[in-house]
Amino acid sequence: MKIIVDAFGGDHAPLEILKGCAQAVQEYGVEIMLTGREETIRRVARENQIPLDHMEIVNAQDVISMDDAPGEIMKSRNGCSMAEGLRQLAAGNGDAFLSAGNSGALVIGTTMIVKRIRGVKRLSFAPVMPKRKGFFLLIDGGANVDCRAEMLQQFGVMGSIYMEKVMGIESPRVGLTNVGTEDHKGGELQHESFELLRQTPGLNFIGNIEARDIPEDAADVVVADGFTGNVILKLYEGVALTMMSMIKSIFTKNLLTKLAAAIVMPEMRSLKKQLDYNEYGGAPIMGAAKPVFKVHGSAKATTVKNAIRLTKAYVEENVVGEISAALGKSGGAQ
Amino acid sequence: MKIIVDAFGGDHAPLEILKGCAQAVQEYGVEIMLTGREETIRRVARENQIPLDHMEIVNAQDVISMDDAPGEIMKSRNGCSMAEGLRQLAAGNGDAFLSAGNSGALVIGTTMIVKRIRGVKRLSFAPVMPKRKGFFLLIDGGANVDCRAEMLQQFGVMGSIYMEKVMGIESPRVGLTNVGTEDHKGGELQHESFELLRQTPGLNFIGNIEARDIPEDAADVVVADGFTGNVILKLYEGVALTMMSMIKSIFTKNLLTKLAAAIVMPEMRSLKKQLDYNEYGGAPIMGAAKPVFKVHGSAKATTVKNAIRLTKAYVEENVVGEISAALGKSGGAQ
Repeated sequence: MKIIVDAFGGDHAPLEILKGCAQAVQEYGVEIMLTGREETIRRVARENQIPLDHMEIVNAQDVISMDDAPGEIMKSRNGCSMAEGLRQLAAGNGDAFLSAGNSGALVIGTTMIVKRIRGVKRLSFAPVMPKRKGFFLLIDGGANVDCRAEMLQQFGVMGSIYMEKVMGIESPRVGLTNVGTEDHKGGELQHESFELLRQTPGLNFIGNIEARDIPEDAADVVVADGFTGNVILKLYEGVALTMMSMIKSIFTKNLLTKLAAAIVMPEMRSLKKQLDYNEYGGAPIMGAAKPVFKVHGSAKATTVKNAIRLTKAYVEENVVGEISAALGKSGGAQ
Repeated sequence: MKIIVDAFGGDHAPLEILKGCAQAVQEYGVEIMLTGREETIRRVARENQIPLDHMEIVNAQDVISMDDAPGEIMKSRNGCSMAEGLRQLAAGNGDAFLSAGNSGALVIGTTMIVKRIRGVKRLSFAPVMPKRKGFFLLIDGGANVDCRAEMLQQFGVMGSIYMEKVMGIESPRVGLTNVGTEDHKGGELQHESFELLRQTPGLNFIGNIEARDIPEDAADVVVADGFTGNVILKLYEGVALTMMSMIKSIFTKNLLTKLAAAIVMPEMRSLKKQLDYNEYGGAPIMGAAKPVFKVHGSAKATTVKNAIRLTKAYVEENVVGEISAALGKSGGAQ
């Protein structure tokens, strides 16, 4: 299996990306195709003694930064590392593509270059996020600001397949984000989506869920339109970060509180790790005709390695084929 | 000044409501009109030695519970404490109404009985919530699931007036909740709302804000459609509660961690208090023709007392008149 990796996506590229790839080659026996400035890749690998065995490099001079408008991905003249990776994937020169770069650009690039599975109405950015125990998939996390009910139905189906096949959750509980748990809650979009999800064969749809219950354990797949999903994704992170920082300032107040901090430090670290959705290996771009995977922008080597493992499962479990069977032109949920 | 209080709204009614009212009479010199079962009120007051000086009671037999459908408020035959309070307010027998009961019922009851300020398109439920330092107003917190841009514009205006007049924030920063901070972000509703808010005279509109930044300090007035606002309100609470409970389980792990807990306990308590939006005194129902105020359902005496202080300011600062001047038939933002 060959995973194509954007060597220049993310805050710690290319060094941490290269390290993660080298670890993945060793641990999972995958082949890697790196896209990006070949000269820099070779220099950084040499300087840090990272072996490039089982890795090939496809040169691309430009990089889409986190601050670039997502549409820029289609404009680069010299080829950018992300677009080049997507082109290599579309051409069949690898089995999946992975990037820690600009999420918006990745969604647009995937739509334009890799394209959707026939029958899938929209691609979705679907981050795996932490809850009290384990994790849930949020779909859509922000790829589609304006959504119709048919799209939310497909998000539920795609999310369920991913959580079952890649994350190993049996019969994942699919919940619709709403302003209350009663069946009739919400506006037109929620009413229609509720009915479509309820009627989808084979889906473990548990009905409406409230945002209050998501952090404890509302569902395995949290379905929302992309606007709401993006607010959930960002507020979740914002509240957790602010609280962590407030707690930190309590612990650093004086010598005595620093002692207290030392006592609970290992547990607090593991809590922080648990809340860091970085650890769960990012977000698949669901509905793409070939596996495309987004890693968190701040990913370091271990996260990149984990993401490669998930991407490998994404390929091996034939998630694209499963989605195509469920939603494709001959599929059930049209 | 006479504040009408729903003696049977909330989890700790009527005892904590009565206590809070008695404290408010003493501290703020207000008159109180209590609505609810007179017999029970007199018995509870007697048993707990709560003086009923400067309080009159208007009997109402029924109570809207937290689990009742909001529409039930208009159906009671024997008069319910919330509807009776709203009727007394509408009839001019008091200056403001306050309830810790069912929020949805309060919005519907206010719409039907107290009615809107002429020119205001929709009432809004606008909770005051904690941020890292101080608080912000979320408007709309869930009264209007489907919103048009003109409504969001009015939310911004009403929220700004409340934060300035009642909460004492000079020239409050008004932000529009969006999927990014750039001007062009979001869907049609956000684009139109952005333009209307930008063009509103006298409003300190700071543009689009992201949910990630709300807990630190994105704005003093966070404008959102009621669906998104409700998700923000509930997720905020959910993430904070889950984190607090996870931290608690760290601290209670063994003797040593319990020692650590004892050291930081006072600070952790004050953090918890800071994050408890209960403390900030609830949510005005903005746009009503007379002041209506929602207290958190779990409110105890001190919160009820604080809410009466805010309700008094709501009356004294003539917030209704200010909103009417800004949005009324002859006002600017039509």
